[in-house]
Amino acid sequence: MDGLISNIKNCKATIPLIILLVSIAWFKTSDSTRHIKPVKINIEFPIECKANWKSNGKVENESNEDKHRMIDCYCPATGQYLGQYKSFTMDDIDATVNKSQVAFQDWKNSSFDRRLKILISLREFILKHQSEIASVACRDSGKTMIDASMGEILTTLEKLNWTIKHGRRILDKPSYRSGPTNFFMKFYKGSKIQYEPLGPIASIVSWNYPFHNLMGPVISAIITGNTIVVKCSEKVIWSSKFYINLIQKCLLSCNENPDIVQLCYCLPPNLPMDNAANYFTSHPGLKHITFIGSETVAHTILENTAKSMTPTVLELGGKDSLIILDSLPSNQLESLSSIILRGTFQSSGQNCIGIERVIVTSKYYKSLIKIITTRLETHPLKQSSDIDSLSSVDVGAMISSNRFKHLESLIDDAVKDGAKLLFGGKQYQNKLYPDGNYFEPTVLIDVTPSMKIANEEVFGPILVLMEAKNKADAINISNGSKFGLGNSVFGSREDGDFVANKLQSGNVAINDFATFYICQLPFGGTKSSGFGKFNGEEGLLGLCNAKSICYDKIPGIRTTIPPALDYPMKSKAWLFVENFITAAYTMNWYDFIMSLIGLAKNS
Amino acid sequence: MDGLISNIKNCKATIPLIILLVSIAWFKTSDSTRHIKPVKINIEFPIECKANWKSNGKVENESNEDKHRMIDCYCPATGQYLGQYKSFTMDDIDATVNKSQVAFQDWKNSSFDRRLKILISLREFILKHQSEIASVACRDSGKTMIDASMGEILTTLEKLNWTIKHGRRILDKPSYRSGPTNFFMKFYKGSKIQYEPLGPIASIVSWNYPFHNLMGPVISAIITGNTIVVKCSEKVIWSSKFYINLIQKCLLSCNENPDIVQLCYCLPPNLPMDNAANYFTSHPGLKHITFIGSETVAHTILENTAKSMTPTVLELGGKDSLIILDSLPSNQLESLSSIILRGTFQSSGQNCIGIERVIVTSKYYKSLIKIITTRLETHPLKQSSDIDSLSSVDVGAMISSNRFKHLESLIDDAVKDGAKLLFGGKQYQNKLYPDGNYFEPTVLIDVTPSMKIANEEVFGPILVLMEAKNKADAINISNGSKFGLGNSVFGSREDGDFVANKLQSGNVAINDFATFYICQLPFGGTKSSGFGKFNGEEGLLGLCNAKSICYDKIPGIRTTIPPALDYPMKSKAWLFVENFITAAYTMNWYDFIMSLIGLAKNS
Repeated sequence: MDGLISNIKNCKATIPLIILLVSIAWFKTSDSTRHIKPVKINIEFPIECKANWKSNGKVENESNEDKHRMIDCYCPATGQYLGQYKSFTMDDIDATVNKSQVAFQDWKNSSFDRRLKILISLREFILKHQSEIASVACRDSGKTMIDASMGEILTTLEKLNWTIKHGRRILDKPSYRSGPTNFFMKFYKGSKIQYEPLGPIASIVSWNYPFHNLMGPVISAIITGNTIVVKCSEKVIWSSKFYINLIQKCLLSCNENPDIVQLCYCLPPNLPMDNAANYFTSHPGLKHITFIGSETVAHTILENTAKSMTPTVLELGGKDSLIILDSLPSNQLESLSSIILRGTFQSSGQNCIGIERVIVTSKYYKSLIKIITTRLETHPLKQSSDIDSLSSVDVGAMISSNRFKHLESLIDDAVKDGAKLLFGGKQYQNKLYPDGNYFEPTVLIDVTPSMKIANEEVFGPILVLMEAKNKADAINISNGSKFGLGNSVFGSREDGDFVANKLQSGNVAINDFATFYICQLPFGGTKSSGFGKFNGEEGLLGLCNAKSICYDKIPGIRTTIPPALDYPMKSKAWLFVENFITAAYTMNWYDFIMSLIGLAKNS
Repeated sequence: MDGLISNIKNCKATIPLIILLVSIAWFKTSDSTRHIKPVKINIEFPIECKANWKSNGKVENESNEDKHRMIDCYCPATGQYLGQYKSFTMDDIDATVNKSQVAFQDWKNSSFDRRLKILISLREFILKHQSEIASVACRDSGKTMIDASMGEILTTLEKLNWTIKHGRRILDKPSYRSGPTNFFMKFYKGSKIQYEPLGPIASIVSWNYPFHNLMGPVISAIITGNTIVVKCSEKVIWSSKFYINLIQKCLLSCNENPDIVQLCYCLPPNLPMDNAANYFTSHPGLKHITFIGSETVAHTILENTAKSMTPTVLELGGKDSLIILDSLPSNQLESLSSIILRGTFQSSGQNCIGIERVIVTSKYYKSLIKIITTRLETHPLKQSSDIDSLSSVDVGAMISSNRFKHLESLIDDAVKDGAKLLFGGKQYQNKLYPDGNYFEPTVLIDVTPSMKIANEEVFGPILVLMEAKNKADAINISNGSKFGLGNSVFGSREDGDFVANKLQSGNVAINDFATFYICQLPFGGTKSSGFGKFNGEEGLLGLCNAKSICYDKIPGIRTTIPPALDYPMKSKAWLFVENFITAAYTMNWYDFIMSLIGLAKNS
């Protein structure tokens, strides 16, 4: 990418270059969906996401009889009050699922052109309004605009674009299969699988990427012909309402039922006065649930889906490692340090596939520490929010301050056990936004596998460096975690392949960071990171009933019960069926011919 | 098939025929696994499966301190006592899972030749010992030899043969994917999925096909490189022990660890004095569970796997319909009646994809009743066991008599509500085997959708005939069930396709009965019939960790963070990334070129 850009930057704009660009542009923009034009979506962006917006603060309404059901939302970067939302009751949930079922009756039979029109319109809108969409996510999650651009906009556009390009191919045509190997049946029996929408589905998504986490399942639901209810985290109701409104406006502009995509939010599960979250996840009207969140909540969700027998995909925590091996060319360590910093501090480390451990074999361990130390000493990471002015902020806020004490204790414990704290390590008081939730970008070296911080998911801006003796040791350290979501390995291509084979995780990037996610490969973890896949071909097919169908390929030939096996049974039936099975499956030609003769004798 | 057989029977054995047969035999027996030779398996068949075996009866041992843990097994066809088995304790389960984990450490890296050698040896042994294997299944389940041949031997050999032929192709090579659509990445980023065994897996299988239900998951485990613990039903421990012993003998003959395949059995879950079954299904050492059984037990199993977060496939009950439409050529009704009788009375109706409802549109309803009535009046179905002599038995015993009262009440209720009982309807006293569990083959007509027997899974030898007004009505009646396992539809190919599209089930056979199972299509139901698939490509891949891997395709090109997006952030970063994203995803060539220029300006 760099090469191309610097070419464009440096060269004089010559005619050949222009011709090349136009050709690429034509090539790029010609595809099978070109006949589908995006519709215009009319929506106003909320005033709260504008720069220098001032909140009026919360006005208590003591007489509100639903007071205990009200959920407050704040901007984590500034502490400003965003609004109050009434948690869904069981009746609200029934009504929402019911509307989803009604919408499904038409939507399940929708053409791919109808489905694609929605996705193409959303792609167009997002491309044209990147900055506004990012600022809504920043206001509700506290991340920086660049974090939002990479983690919310780019990821969503890639999923949209990939789904527009590949969705119809994957879902529209049946998948034909080889059929039986039975000698008597294989010539005439055809086998196929066709993919049908399941019904109303649900996704329960975490707060760390309010736009992308919400959009991902919606895109998959739309292309598969499912209707969907998204249950957002109670921490990001404000932005989720806006994004769902955007999708519903798009549906309306496409002359579709807005109930195809709906929102639900409620208080956390297992509160004494409110059981709505459990009611939602055990609702028999929902035919599939994708959950992105923590292991603790996952157990509760599985208990609930056990009641309704709802198939469930769990995308839980991770302790992803980035492994650096001796075979990495030494001139790449500097540029790799940029990847490490971005992969660790993106969204203040609140990233399910963020780098939780950097494991380096002895050859490069000290040099890497030196590079990072020099970089951060020369240019300390600037922590703040760029929501009011597009200033050069490096690291943003965290969603809340309620884990700060715990993060500090993880760091303190590690230091007590021999780790060294090079940068950060505690809550950061931002003078510009004193009510924001900031934790200093932290660098901790000489972490060993037995330390708590090497095992627990940190989900914060803490760079953990661990030294490994060699390749085998690096693999062992990486696999020592109870999680198995994603990993990356840097070294020679051969080493990369070798280590990728050995790592216990659902995803591996070789000489790259987390790109498996961008690649639209099926995404999901093993071990305590959950099970099931979303994204990619498997992600789409998982939201379908894969209906297995067999049929007769040759006109006039169909299965009948041979007279020898028909009721009433004859005494020769056993000899017939024994010879039949032998002829059907033996690999010995003598047995084959003898069994055919036996068949003829006993039929 | 019929055509071929009658050709062989009728023609004089001419030289061209012999040449043809030898050619077919050569073609048939040449495949990619030809270099793998089957080993000889040394095993003696138990004396209990011999004809005219006499049981010594049960000897009570009052002093046995494990008395409350002992499980008695009987032959359902004769009532003879087969033996007593001590239910696994939690310690036994730990030891079994532990051995499975140890065996997995080597087995997970086994070559496909090693795996195939086992399957090929089993195929050879089963082909040569069809009758003995069938008689073991008959002794423990009460079915007839022909039922065993079709439901145990044929199904298992097809799965073995299909797995031998296709397993390596499906699992050995990575599945390469299209990768990202991002304009800057798609040229150099490669994407693939590789399939790795999960670890020790478990299958919990029902008693109705003691051989096939046990063998199916074992075959899949072996080819995927997983080790497996099969938990058999407490009703068929006697035969399950023999079959597992056969597999372990085969493993030993192939110089493999016999712990690759192990057996577990215990008392049913939720007994006050024994919690072993729940301990097994929540065991964290098991990485995947396939359950074949009832909905009630499925809820318990899901509660347990919720604790261990084990991915689970549920294959539960069904209320499969066979639909006959006006477009069926009338000359096929007679031969279809043979399929209906076989599909209903096979294994005394104890078949998860047995025909539970025959739904006929008005044109053929009366004629079909007439054909069936005439057939059963002319040749009443003979009910008994052929375990002692290969006599012409049509319908065998049921697993136990404990549901007989309930079946009788379902029939009585239906008759009270207007159905007509044409044959059977009550327990059958077999004079030859007075202690066997026999229920008369029953025919019930004019059943309507509101009757209990039209909704509840019968799992017994009861043919239920229902009249439908037309195609749409037939579809509605079929979909009225809470189950969605399999269905079959008979009519023109167009009608078959139309109805197959509309049926709410995981599997459909067009102009055939249940052949989707033989075809090795992924098998599994929707609605209350469970979720997930076994068999076929999806069945094998479901037992693997599908590891998503991305890598660089072009030597020398790798992802780096562009300077504009590297820490410390510059003020132009936003403009850079906005243009980058536009260039990567826009479909408009003007926007594309402008964004490239924007990129160059801001990099």
